[in-house]
Amino acid sequence: MISVESRSSAISGSVGVRAPCERCFTENDQHEPLLQRGLMPSQLEELRERLAEINDLGRARALLGWDERTQMPPAGAEVRAEQVATLARIRHELLISDELGRLIEGAASETESLPYDSDDASLVRVARRGWDKARRVPADLRAELTRAASLAEHAWADARADSDFAAFLPHLQKNVELRRRYADCFDGFDDFVDEFDPLLDDFEPGMTTPEMTAVLGELRDGIRPLIAAVAESGADIDDSCLHGDFPLDAQETLAREVVTELPLQEGAWRLDQTVHPFATAISPADLRITTRFEPEYIGTAVWAVIHESGHAIYENGVPKELWRSPLASPSSLGFHESQSRLWENWVGRGRPYLERLMPRLRELFPARLGEVELDTLYRAANKIEPSLIRVEADQVTYNLHIILRFELELGIFDGSIDLADLPEAWNSKVQEYLGISVPDDAQGVLQDVHWAGGMFGYFPTYSLGNVVAGQLWDRITAELPDVEEQIGRGELTGLREWLRENLHRHGNKFMPKELIEKVVGGPIDVAPYVRQLHERVAEIYDI
Amino acid sequence: MISVESRSSAISGSVGVRAPCERCFTENDQHEPLLQRGLMPSQLEELRERLAEINDLGRARALLGWDERTQMPPAGAEVRAEQVATLARIRHELLISDELGRLIEGAASETESLPYDSDDASLVRVARRGWDKARRVPADLRAELTRAASLAEHAWADARADSDFAAFLPHLQKNVELRRRYADCFDGFDDFVDEFDPLLDDFEPGMTTPEMTAVLGELRDGIRPLIAAVAESGADIDDSCLHGDFPLDAQETLAREVVTELPLQEGAWRLDQTVHPFATAISPADLRITTRFEPEYIGTAVWAVIHESGHAIYENGVPKELWRSPLASPSSLGFHESQSRLWENWVGRGRPYLERLMPRLRELFPARLGEVELDTLYRAANKIEPSLIRVEADQVTYNLHIILRFELELGIFDGSIDLADLPEAWNSKVQEYLGISVPDDAQGVLQDVHWAGGMFGYFPTYSLGNVVAGQLWDRITAELPDVEEQIGRGELTGLREWLRENLHRHGNKFMPKELIEKVVGGPIDVAPYVRQLHERVAEIYDI
Repeated sequence: MISVESRSSAISGSVGVRAPCERCFTENDQHEPLLQRGLMPSQLEELRERLAEINDLGRARALLGWDERTQMPPAGAEVRAEQVATLARIRHELLISDELGRLIEGAASETESLPYDSDDASLVRVARRGWDKARRVPADLRAELTRAASLAEHAWADARADSDFAAFLPHLQKNVELRRRYADCFDGFDDFVDEFDPLLDDFEPGMTTPEMTAVLGELRDGIRPLIAAVAESGADIDDSCLHGDFPLDAQETLAREVVTELPLQEGAWRLDQTVHPFATAISPADLRITTRFEPEYIGTAVWAVIHESGHAIYENGVPKELWRSPLASPSSLGFHESQSRLWENWVGRGRPYLERLMPRLRELFPARLGEVELDTLYRAANKIEPSLIRVEADQVTYNLHIILRFELELGIFDGSIDLADLPEAWNSKVQEYLGISVPDDAQGVLQDVHWAGGMFGYFPTYSLGNVVAGQLWDRITAELPDVEEQIGRGELTGLREWLRENLHRHGNKFMPKELIEKVVGGPIDVAPYVRQLHERVAEIYDI
Repeated sequence: MISVESRSSAISGSVGVRAPCERCFTENDQHEPLLQRGLMPSQLEELRERLAEINDLGRARALLGWDERTQMPPAGAEVRAEQVATLARIRHELLISDELGRLIEGAASETESLPYDSDDASLVRVARRGWDKARRVPADLRAELTRAASLAEHAWADARADSDFAAFLPHLQKNVELRRRYADCFDGFDDFVDEFDPLLDDFEPGMTTPEMTAVLGELRDGIRPLIAAVAESGADIDDSCLHGDFPLDAQETLAREVVTELPLQEGAWRLDQTVHPFATAISPADLRITTRFEPEYIGTAVWAVIHESGHAIYENGVPKELWRSPLASPSSLGFHESQSRLWENWVGRGRPYLERLMPRLRELFPARLGEVELDTLYRAANKIEPSLIRVEADQVTYNLHIILRFELELGIFDGSIDLADLPEAWNSKVQEYLGISVPDDAQGVLQDVHWAGGMFGYFPTYSLGNVVAGQLWDRITAELPDVEEQIGRGELTGLREWLRENLHRHGNKFMPKELIEKVVGGPIDVAPYVRQLHERVAEIYDI
C-alpha cells in the first residue's frame, strides 16, 4: 500500500480542513464551560487554537530535525532543508500575524481579572511577549540572518577542518553585523539596558547582561581557586578505567538500561544514535533522546545519556493543561540545562548512583571494569583537569570554557575586541583561566558551531544551568534529606516528583527570574553551586 | 544540548521567514534565466514557490505518519493526531486559497504558448485541476468527512474484533451519506458521467465509472475460467516450504539484502518494521519502505518488501526538475500499484529472480529451505487458492476480492444495495467468485479499513495496477528480450532504466489516460495481463 499522505497532488477526500468552529463537532465537548458562561467562541479560545497550531508546526519541525539527525537516508538532506525552512517560515508567519495580535488583545481583556499565575493569564502574557518580540524584526533582516548563518556554518566546518580562522573571519563579521542590527530592533523593549540584552533574551528571557556578568564573574572567582588547589595538590587521579575497549553493543545495552531506570514515563521516549547528542520533545509524551557511543570511552554512554534524559524528564513533567501551547516547553535554556546537569552531575556522578550501577558495569564490561573498585570509578567520574575542548571538559573547568566565551562575546559586541584579534584573545584567556596553550584554532576559537550559527548569548546559559542546579540541590537535600539513599536504592521518583511539583509543573508560565523565586525562594545565587563543587573536589582530592 | 527547534516559544533568532523575494539572496541564482527574459518575478515563479511549500507540508505530514507507524513511542499518539491534522489543515488552506487561484491564472497566461507536455505547462495544468477540485468542497463538509471517518475507523476496529456488523452499520451509513454529498459537489466537473466518478477520481484521476466497470468486468471474465481450471485440475501445490519456523533476525537480514539488490538509489532509502506494510516518499531521494516479519511465514519478508520497494523505485525515478511540485509524485494509484506489483509478481515471483535468491534462502534458513528445490519454491510462490482475506490472497484470486468490492461499492452508490444487507451481498459474491463460505463478518465485509475511512473508489486501483503492469510487461519483454536473463544475473538496472525512461520520468504530468498511451501506445487493455496469468498458471499447474 502506498501511503496516501505522501501524494502531493490534491487528494481532497481524506484531508481535514478548518471549519468555522470545528470543535463544536466533537463529542467530547470542551466548549461546554465556556458555553455556560456565554462566552463561546471567546477570543481566548480562538487564541488557544491558533497557538496550538503554531506549536504543532514547531513540534513537526523538531521531528524533521530529529529524523534528519538520526534516521534520514543521506540523500534526503537537500530537500529536507527546504521542508524544515517551509515549516519554520509558515510558523513564523502565523506568529507575527495581525490576526494573532488581535486575538492576544481580545484574550487579554477577557483574562484581565484572572490571577497572574493562572494558566490563561500566563498564556496571554507569554504569547504577547513572543508576538511583540517577533514583530520587531523586519522580514528581510530575518532572511539575511538565516542565510548568513547557513553560509557561515558551512564555512566554519571547512575552516575548522583546516584550522583556518582567516577563512571564517568574513562570515563571523557578517554574523556580528547582522546580530547588531537584530539587537537594534529592540530599542526600548522590556527592561533591556544593554545592546547584548536582546541576544541573551532569545535564550534566557529577561536576563540582562549586567546580571549575567555578575553571576558568571562570581562563579569564575569561586572556582578558579578550586582549580588552583587541585593543581597544587599534585594529585593525578587515575581515570584509565573509563578508557579502553568498550564493545558498542554492550554500551547500547547499558545506555538503554540507564534511561529505563530514570523516572521517565513508560512508552513516552526512545533512544537513538547521532553524531552530537541532543534531546527533543515532539510532545511532552514523545521524547527523543539521542547519544553517540565511543568505542574507546564509556563516559558518553552513561553521562551524556543521563544529561539528555534530564532534558526529557523536564519536558515530560509539564502538565497536560499546558500541552500544545507556548507554555508547554520551558523557554529558559538555563533552567533546561539545570535539569540535564542535575541528573548528569548531581545524580549520575554521585557515589550512590555509581554504586548502584557498578555491578552492571562489571557484568557488561568485564575486561575493563571487572576488577575496578567503586571508589576508583567515582574518582574517575569526577576528575578535574583543564583541557582544550569544551564538550570534553570536566564539570568544574567546563564553566571556565563558558565564562571565557561569554567574556569574549561581550568584548565583541562592546567593540573592545576586534574580530581579527579573536584567536589571540581566545588563546590568552585559555592560558589565563585554564593554564594551557592552544596549539591551533581548530582546538581553540573554531571548536564550537554556535557563533557560526549566529547564536551569541547561548553559551552563558550552560553555566547558568549549573548555578540553578546547585540552588535546586540545596533545596532538595533540605526537603528530601534521604534523597541520596533513595538514589542508591534506585528510587528516583521521589526526586522527580519534587522537581515536578516545584519546577516542571510551571512549564513556561514564568520568566526565569520569577521562576527561581518560586522554586528556591530567592534570586539566582552562585554560592550553593560553588560550595557543592568545593565539597566534592575536597573529597576526591583530599584537600 | 536541547534542540532549539523543539522550543515552542518565540525564539526568533534562528527561524527563517519569507522575505519579499528570498531567492534573490541565494548565491545559486535560479532567477537568472527569468531575469534575462525580463519576467522576474513571474507569476509562474511565484506559483512554483507556493506549490513547493504545499508539497513540503504534505511531505512533512507523510514523515509524521511514517514516524507514527514505525518509530513513535506509544504515548505520543494523542498529540501526534493533532499535529498531523494541523499540517493537513494548513496545507489545505494554502491549496484552496484565492491567492493560489490568481497565481495559477497568471501562470497560465505566461505558459499558454508552451508545449502541452512541457514541465511548466503541466505544472499549471495539474495545479489548476487540483485547485478546482479542492475549491468545490465546502469546509464544513470536509470537516464532517474527516470527523466521521475518524469515528468510523475506531468503531470499525471494535466491530471487527467482535465480528459485529450492526455496530459498524450507522458509521458506514454516515460515511456513504457524506460521500454522496461530496460527490454532489462535482456536478458538471470535467467529464464526470456518474455519481461515483468523483470518488474514483480522487484515486484514479480521469477514470470514469463505466470505464472501470468495463475493465474490471473483462478481468473478472478472464480469470474466472482460470480459477475454475485450477480447481478442476485437482492439483494441490505444496507450499509448506514457505511456512514454519523462520527466525526473525534472519528474515530481517534477508529483507535488507533484497532491498539492497533492487535498483534503488544508494543512500536514499531505509527499511523499518510496522504492522501494515507501506511505502512513503519523504522526497524522491528519501524513501521509507516498511514491512512486517511473520515468525511462521517467509513470504512477507520477500514479496511484501519487493512490493513496497516497487512503489519506492517509482518515486525515486521522478526527475529532479519536478521535485517539490505536484508533478513529483504520481497521483494515479493504479500506476503506482502497477510498479509495486510488477516488481513483486513479474520480477519477484518469477523463476529467474527466485533462482538467484535460492542459495541465500538456503543459507539463511537451512532448517526450512536447506533441501528445497527451486521448482518447489517457484510453484509455492505462485500457488493459486481461493481464500477469505484479501491481503493474504494469491496474485490471481486477489483480483476477485477487488472486483467484488468494486461491484458492491457501485451497488451501494446506485442504491441497489441496502447497507443493512451488505454482509449478505458480500457473502454471496464470495461464494459466487471464490467458491467459499464466509464464516463471520470479521473475515468478510469487516476485513478492510477502507470503507471505514470513507475511501470508496480506492479498491479498484489495486486491480487496475495489475492490468497496467501486464501491459508494461509486454512492452518490456518486446524491447528488452533478455530481461529475464538480466534478472537471473541480478542485473536489475536495465529494467529500472526502461521504467524510468518510459514511465517514471513523467512524474505526475499526465492524466492516467494520457500516460498509458505514452507508455504502451494504446489504452488500458486487460488482455496482456490475463494472457500472462494463463501462461504462468498453465506452467505451474500443467494445464
